[in-house]
Amino acid sequence: MAFGSFVKLFMPKDRVFYGLFEEVTASLVQMSEVFKKAVSEEDYARRDSLLKSLEELEHKNDEITHRIFIELGRNFITPFDREDIHFLATSLDDVADYIWGAAKRIVNYSIHEKDAITVGFADIIHRSVNELNKAVKELRNMRDLRSITEACVKINSLENEGDELLDKAMIGLFSSNINPIELIKKKDLFQMLEIVTDKCEDAANVIESIIIKYS
Amino acid sequence: MAFGSFVKLFMPKDRVFYGLFEEVTASLVQMSEVFKKAVSEEDYARRDSLLKSLEELEHKNDEITHRIFIELGRNFITPFDREDIHFLATSLDDVADYIWGAAKRIVNYSIHEKDAITVGFADIIHRSVNELNKAVKELRNMRDLRSITEACVKINSLENEGDELLDKAMIGLFSSNINPIELIKKKDLFQMLEIVTDKCEDAANVIESIIIKYS
Amino acid sequence: MAFGSFVKLFMPKDRVFYGLFEEVTASLVQMSEVFKKAVSEEDYARRDSLLKSLEELEHKNDEITHRIFIELGRNFITPFDREDIHFLATSLDDVADYIWGAAKRIVNYSIHEKDAITVGFADIIHRSVNELNKAVKELRNMRDLRSITEACVKINSLENEGDELLDKAMIGLFSSNINPIELIKKKDLFQMLEIVTDKCEDAANVIESIIIKYS
Repeated sequence: MAFGSFVKLFMPKDRVFYGLFEEVTASLVQMSEVFKKAVSEEDYARRDSLLKSLEELEHKNDEITHRIFIELGRNFITPFDREDIHFLATSLDDVADYIWGAAKRIVNYSIHEKDAITVGFADIIHRSVNELNKAVKELRNMRDLRSITEACVKINSLENEGDELLDKAMIGLFSSNINPIELIKKKDLFQMLEIVTDKCEDAANVIESIIIKYS
Repeated sequence: MAFGSFVKLFMPKDRVFYGLFEEVTASLVQMSEVFKKAVSEEDYARRDSLLKSLEELEHKNDEITHRIFIELGRNFITPFDREDIHFLATSLDDVADYIWGAAKRIVNYSIHEKDAITVGFADIIHRSVNELNKAVKELRNMRDLRSITEACVKINSLENEGDELLDKAMIGLFSSNINPIELIKKKDLFQMLEIVTDKCEDAANVIESIIIKYS
Repeated sequence: MAFGSFVKLFMPKDRVFYGLFEEVTASLVQMSEVFKKAVSEEDYARRDSLLKSLEELEHKNDEITHRIFIELGRNFITPFDREDIHFLATSLDDVADYIWGAAKRIVNYSIHEKDAITVGFADIIHRSVNELNKAVKELRNMRDLRSITEACVKINSLENEGDELLDKAMIGLFSSNINPIELIKKKDLFQMLEIVTDKCEDAANVIESIIIKYS
């Protein structure tokens, strides 16, 4: 028996989780790119069509998350604590849900004009999700714990940026003479965008607790 | 010693969980029936009195959920993973809470007219909760795993129906000339009704993960 | 070796959790006092400055919660089930987040007048958080289980008071001739205040399940 096969024979089956989590965060990066491009678009028909294209990505993400839960049920041995896999899968799934939720609000509420707050959130979310992707890739070999920690710290600070952007947005909305229906639309959209950054932070916190246990 | 007593002696105490979960879903079925009947009612005084009767059912449900948590604390051995019992109890309790929350909104916001969206949600919720009840009954003997899976698939597809109904409702509200206060009432109510279907799906997902582990 | 050192040598390291949870609930008591004082203040400049001072307390609370999760990652042995530590830390952190969230709404929405509903919630929250503080202190020695149970029962009944206060507030708002923007502000604030009482109840439920297991 060649050494390669020998290794493969004993390669734990639990390694399937790394690939699945990498698929999830790669798809989140893609979603955040489409979302960012959409909300920066001046032409609202093109923007709406980009936003609607997120539905398929969100469904794809749902399916990968579902496979993670199936594997979690099947595998007695897991690379990290079962509860951490559960919480990481749930919070990453929430990131996708809330990006899609924000996209749907823009479409369903007929929010036609491009606005700086939404563009600002799209950028924060895009950067957060990229850091999640980096961190998850490093989980596979656990060699560069510092870069995982750095990614998590950045996500935490991006969540703070999101909080401040929401504060600024709310102060702006409530001190303006905007009509109530428009205020309702924007308030709901901005609050949903801020939740995306919260969910990224939740995921980062799980990753941090995984590396504490394994360091 | 008769064979019956012998069996009883060795019947695991953990079987108490089956009965408690069955009580919870039976009470959810009852709540969803009262809710459906109430929102289909043209006379709003009769409707409000039906809606208010949900409070007692919700309290009863709370008590059963509480007993599940007490049993979980007392029993070292459980029929499924402890975390699954925890998540299943929590999500079923959320179903009851959000049905009651929707009922309270109709009453507290003085929403007097019967409307098709609410009736649509009541029907989706009623069907979802019936599927949960079927699935939970089958957990006791785990003989008919296919029917459990089918119930969970139906609940997932009912949650999609709920999503689409909410989209339709929101597009309707924001493209109408409804006054802002009326919009706030309806938006809040419809979003709460959609959350009920999400919570049914959460419960179905836990049930699915239970049968994966035991199949 | 003196008996003292001997005891210390064997004093389980897991006792760090008691101190951390006590720090969390003590800081919640402080937050609830500042919040109560702020919303009872007639002068809105003074009130806003008190509310803004909650940010620092919330950050401090975040840091303690973070340390609980780090200790949870490091310690193989914990004084209660790991999941209970996780849920207790999460729900107490939520209490702080939602108090701060309510404070930010008052400031960001420019809610200038003192109102009886907010004062009522501040009082309920203050009492709830004090009961949490009492219960957490008793966890250390587990000698007075009755007083822990009593605290939890009180928190549950305070959550009911919060529910009723929110019902009253909503009926009031929707039956008034308030302008829509003002209604949006108040509705959002009152709902957030009611969530604080829910999160206190969540924490009380975890504490109850801890004492069931250890009694």
